[in-house]
Amino acid sequence: MTEPLTGEAQRFATVNSLMSAIAGTGRDARRGGYSRPVYSTAELELREWFVAEATARGLAVERDSNGIIWAWWDLPDRHDGGAPAGADPRAGALVTGSHLDSVPGGGPFDGPLGVASALAAFDVLKMREAAGTLARKRAFAIAVFPEEEGSAFGVACLGSRLLTGAIDPVRALNLTDERGTTFADASRAHGLDPDAMGRDELALSRIGDFVELHVEQGRGLNTEDYTDAAGRGPAVAVASSILGHGRWRLSFTGQGNHAGTTLMTDRADPMIAASQAVLAIRSIGAAQPGARATVGRLEPVPGGTNVIASRVDLWIDVRHPDDAVTAALVTRILEQAQQIAALEGCAAELTEESLSATVHFDASLTRALTASAARTVPGTPALATGAGHDAGVLASEVPTGMLFVRNPSGISHSPEEYVEDDDAATGTAALADALGDLL
Amino acid sequence: MTEPLTGEAQRFATVNSLMSAIAGTGRDARRGGYSRPVYSTAELELREWFVAEATARGLAVERDSNGIIWAWWDLPDRHDGGAPAGADPRAGALVTGSHLDSVPGGGPFDGPLGVASALAAFDVLKMREAAGTLARKRAFAIAVFPEEEGSAFGVACLGSRLLTGAIDPVRALNLTDERGTTFADASRAHGLDPDAMGRDELALSRIGDFVELHVEQGRGLNTEDYTDAAGRGPAVAVASSILGHGRWRLSFTGQGNHAGTTLMTDRADPMIAASQAVLAIRSIGAAQPGARATVGRLEPVPGGTNVIASRVDLWIDVRHPDDAVTAALVTRILEQAQQIAALEGCAAELTEESLSATVHFDASLTRALTASAARTVPGTPALATGAGHDAGVLASEVPTGMLFVRNPSGISHSPEEYVEDDDAATGTAALADALGDLL
Repeated sequence: MTEPLTGEAQRFATVNSLMSAIAGTGRDARRGGYSRPVYSTAELELREWFVAEATARGLAVERDSNGIIWAWWDLPDRHDGGAPAGADPRAGALVTGSHLDSVPGGGPFDGPLGVASALAAFDVLKMREAAGTLARKRAFAIAVFPEEEGSAFGVACLGSRLLTGAIDPVRALNLTDERGTTFADASRAHGLDPDAMGRDELALSRIGDFVELHVEQGRGLNTEDYTDAAGRGPAVAVASSILGHGRWRLSFTGQGNHAGTTLMTDRADPMIAASQAVLAIRSIGAAQPGARATVGRLEPVPGGTNVIASRVDLWIDVRHPDDAVTAALVTRILEQAQQIAALEGCAAELTEESLSATVHFDASLTRALTASAARTVPGTPALATGAGHDAGVLASEVPTGMLFVRNPSGISHSPEEYVEDDDAATGTAALADALGDLL
Repeated sequence: MTEPLTGEAQRFATVNSLMSAIAGTGRDARRGGYSRPVYSTAELELREWFVAEATARGLAVERDSNGIIWAWWDLPDRHDGGAPAGADPRAGALVTGSHLDSVPGGGPFDGPLGVASALAAFDVLKMREAAGTLARKRAFAIAVFPEEEGSAFGVACLGSRLLTGAIDPVRALNLTDERGTTFADASRAHGLDPDAMGRDELALSRIGDFVELHVEQGRGLNTEDYTDAAGRGPAVAVASSILGHGRWRLSFTGQGNHAGTTLMTDRADPMIAASQAVLAIRSIGAAQPGARATVGRLEPVPGGTNVIASRVDLWIDVRHPDDAVTAALVTRILEQAQQIAALEGCAAELTEESLSATVHFDASLTRALTASAARTVPGTPALATGAGHDAGVLASEVPTGMLFVRNPSGISHSPEEYVEDDDAATGTAALADALGDLL
C-alpha cells in the first residue's frame, strides 16, 4: 500500500476542505448534529474516508490489535549505520491524531477536527521536507482511536485504555451496547481478535510523543482573561490538565405499583427519590468550586406511564481537578442518596463504572507546544479542561500534550458545538509548526 | 369451526387450572413478572391459547376489524318465529371478557383473570343449560380486547376505543411503538386491514350488556371498612365507577452541553427542571384528596452519561373522580412546570396524549351484579377504582359493569400483584351466577 513519497504524490488539503468532505456523514435528524457511535455505519464511513486520505498521501495504514488505526510516515531507509541493526525504525515516533466517533447528537468537531488537522498538518510538513526546510529525525504517525466517547459500550477512551492496559481486557470484552452485543462480539464482527486485545508494548514503544488537537469544549477561551477588545478570544490554547472524572450508577429501588389505584400516601416511588437525588447532585456539585456534577442519563424501570416505577437507575458524571475532592463529592452524594431513599421507603445503591485521575500533561512537551503555537498565536494560553481525551489516558505512559481550538459557542457534545474556519486553519498551522519542531 | 354443543363436547376447567396453563408465558426475567405487550410473542401465544380453549368448547371464534377476538355461544336456531326474519341473532348479546396484554413487568392477573374466569364461567353455564336450570334468552360471547394497557402504542384501551370511535382511527393508525413501527403497519403485519378500523356499529349492536371481571388493583378490599375480624376482606366487589384519568407528556427543553467542560453556573439543564417537576407533580397530587399524580416514564435526550441533556420528556398520569378537578390539577402542574423551566433557563411544553372522563357504571346492571354476587359473597361491596378498563370505554355505548377480585397485596402493574386461588374461584362463581341471571 505504501508508495514512495515523491513530488508527484504530494496532496495538499486544508483542514476546512477535509472537514467539509465528511460533513454529510452521520447526521442525526432526530437529535440534531451527528451520531457516529463506534462501529455504526457513519463511523465506519469516516474510517474509510481516513484510510483513503492517508493512503492517497502515501502513508502506510495499519490497524492494531486494539482497533486503533495508524497511518505511518516512515523515515527513509538509512544506510549510514545511525540506527542499530534490527532496531524498530518506528520506535519513539511523533504521533498525532484523535477519534472519529461521537456522542449521540454531538457536534461535528469533537474528534474529527483532530484527525482532519493531522492530515492537513502532514501536508504542510511534507511540503517543508520537500523544500528542505524540515529534516526529520524520527518517524511520524497519525492515530485514530476507537470508542473515545464511550457512547456505545459505556467506557470512554476504550481504545487507548486497552492499548495502555488502563482497562482489563476481560472487563472491556464483556461490556455491552444497548442491544446487548458484547464488545468482544462487536470486535470480532469487525475483524479483530478479542483474545489479542489489551496492553500493547510494541505500539506504546513507538509513541515517543503524542500531540492531540481538539475543539475546546467549554467557555475557557471566551472568558475576559483572554478576549480582546472586540470580545474575541485567541484561536488556540495549549492544554495544561484534564479534570479527574468518573461515572457512577446510582440505583433506587422502591415498590412498583399501579399509578391509578395506589394512594399517594401508600407509595415507595423511586422516581421521587431519583428526582431528589438529581437536585442534590446538582447542589453538591455547585457548592464545590471547580467541580462538575451531572445527571444526563436516567432510566425508570419498567418505564410505563401508568406504572409507578419499581427501580430508577441514574448515571452521575463527577469531575474535579483534585481527585480527593472528587472522591469526597461522591461520598457526599451517596450519603444524601441513602437519606433520600430512606425517607421514601426506597433503597439506594451506588456502583463505580469508571474513574480517571486528574492528568497533568507533560511539562516539557507542553512548553514546546506553547513556544511553537506562539509563532501563530502570540501569548497562547494554557487551559485546563473538564473533558476526557485519549491523550489523557496515554499521558500515564508517554509524554502527551494537546492543542485546543476556540469554540465560540462554548458548547460541546451538542449540535451547537462550533469552530470558525479561520480558527481551524490557525489551529492546524500551530499544530504543523509544533509537529515540525518536534520531528 | 362451530360444532354443536353436545354432552360430549362439555369441558370443565376451573379458573385456577386455566391460569396455571398460561403461567409460563411471557415471563420477564429482567423486570420480574410478565411482559406481554400487544403483538409480542407472549401475547400472540396467549391469543392462540384462548382460541384453542374457546374452539374446544364449541364456541365460534372470530376476530373483528379492530382486532377484538369474539368467541360466540350462539342461541340454537329457533323455528318458533320469535325473532323477525333477517334479524341478527347475536344482537343484544351478553358479553364478558377482558384482555391478555400486560404492562412491562406486570402481574399475572391484570387481564388474563377476566378471560380465564369467562371461560370457566361458560363451562358452568353450559352445564346448567344441559341440566335444564338455565334457559337462555340471548346469545353470549367472550371478548378479548387488544392493547388494553397501551404499553406498546401509548394509548390504553386501544381496541375498545377503536370499536366505539372514542379514538379517531387515523390518530390510532399513526401511533408508534418504541421501535417506530406504526400501529397501522403492526396491524397489517398481523392480518388486519388498517382502512377497515374504527367505530363498528354491528359489533356494538351485538353487545346488550358487558360484564368484565378483573383483579382489584388497590387496597380497596383490604381497608377496615370491609375486613373481617381476621383482617380478611371480601373476595369480590362490584365496581361503582372508574376515576377519570389522562396522560400528558411534559417536555423541558434546555441547552445540551458537555458534562465536563460546562461550569455548573453556565447550565440550562432540563434534567434539573424535570426533577423539580416530578416533585411538584407528586406534591400537587398528594395535596388533592382522592387524586393520583404519577411520573413513571422519563426520557432524557440524548441520554448520554457525559452529556447535559438538551431535552427531557416525562409522562404524567393524573386521576380524580371529578373531571374538573383533574383538569385543574393539570393546569396547576403546567403553571409550576413553566415557573420551574423559567428559573432553569429552559422551556416547558405540555401535550395531552389521552383523557378519559370518570365513568359511572350502569346503575341497573350494577344492582343486578351485586344481587347475583351476594349469593356467593354476602354484602358484596361497591368499589370505585383508579384503573382504566375496556369496560369503562364501552360504558359510553352500552350498559357495562365490573366485578373485582380481592388482591391481598394491594399491588398491581407489578410482579407482586396477587390473587388467592380461593378468591379467583369465588369470583368466577359470582361471575357465572351473574351471567346466568342476565342470560
